[in-house]
Amino acid sequence: MPQGQPAAVPADGLTTRQRRNRPLVVVHTGEMKGKSTAAFGLALRGWNQGWRIGVFQFVKSAKWKVGEEEALTALGRVHEQTGQGGPVEWHKMGQGWSWTRKQGTETDHAADALEGWHEIRRRLETEQHDLYVLDEFTYPMKWGWVDVDEVVQVLRDRPGHQHVVVTGRDADPRLVEAADLVVEMTKIKHPMDAGAKGQRGIEW
Amino acid sequence: MPQGQPAAVPADGLTTRQRRNRPLVVVHTGEMKGKSTAAFGLALRGWNQGWRIGVFQFVKSAKWKVGEEEALTALGRVHEQTGQGGPVEWHKMGQGWSWTRKQGTETDHAADALEGWHEIRRRLETEQHDLYVLDEFTYPMKWGWVDVDEVVQVLRDRPGHQHVVVTGRDADPRLVEAADLVVEMTKIKHPMDAGAKGQRGIEW
Repeated sequence: MPQGQPAAVPADGLTTRQRRNRPLVVVHTGEMKGKSTAAFGLALRGWNQGWRIGVFQFVKSAKWKVGEEEALTALGRVHEQTGQGGPVEWHKMGQGWSWTRKQGTETDHAADALEGWHEIRRRLETEQHDLYVLDEFTYPMKWGWVDVDEVVQVLRDRPGHQHVVVTGRDADPRLVEAADLVVEMTKIKHPMDAGAKGQRGIEW
Repeated sequence: MPQGQPAAVPADGLTTRQRRNRPLVVVHTGEMKGKSTAAFGLALRGWNQGWRIGVFQFVKSAKWKVGEEEALTALGRVHEQTGQGGPVEWHKMGQGWSWTRKQGTETDHAADALEGWHEIRRRLETEQHDLYVLDEFTYPMKWGWVDVDEVVQVLRDRPGHQHVVVTGRDADPRLVEAADLVVEMTKIKHPMDAGAKGQRGIEW
């Protein structure tokens, strides 16, 4: 059952209010696909708080997570039309990124990923969103496409009150170290073990 | 990265399409709060498929998860107004259940939980929803308020193509056995360890 009581109150000189409002870096890692799903669930909650949601998908396939994209962008339109909740931006690294409108090369994923990170860095520095979901961002870090030390530095130095959720397997230890909250999704039992295929609505 | 290939194709006589459309029982358990969040993320995806979403919260506090409730019911209104996505019903066991409209006694949580389960059983038997989120339903099972064998039997025998997600700690082994997919959310690091308080948008 949910509990809001910390085990101990630290002697950091912060008030309860300040501690309650601490901006967080959250990492969802582990073997299971719940990583992204839980991140989009957080975005649901943030939307209801009126937060400006920014989702950045570092995946190539347009097939995956289209359900979450449709639902969250529908919530963004609810905000535009009624004022309820917050605005939602959803960007994905398909053929380039949506903000550039350029045709991606489809040949240099590393350059696309780096461009995505640079855009996110700019937004963090200018406080463009209240919640960032950097979906599958552990992979560009793992593959050396972006500099992990720079990512950690930018996250540590980000101004204001911006929450950042990073998802993906094999989170770098430096990212885990910099994070406030790390959740690992562990497989106990999965229907694909029994030969089931991924299915609409559950897997994408 | 997402992968849709099963390790082996079972000799169960099913076609790929049949296997892809198998209705699932999913359990989100473990120590971390991502359990419910990931379940509501699944509901996002299901909504986009046009599924009839039914959420049943077996928690007493109205404070928790109000963000998800607001967001998902907003999506339900989008469906009513535009036809996009599917309908959403959200019921919680506060002062009784919303379908009864009666004033709950606030004294017999066990009876309220049992009434909730009986309503869910009726809906499963008459195929009222395509995705059921039974949030924190492991606790009434753990506390003996509902009969675990009956729950498992009803889930096993449910007709049609209804997905059921159960969340909560300490999932009963019989439920785990009956489930197709079990994900455990494991804490690696949590800000409450450092004395932070639960905060709006992240914790509720």
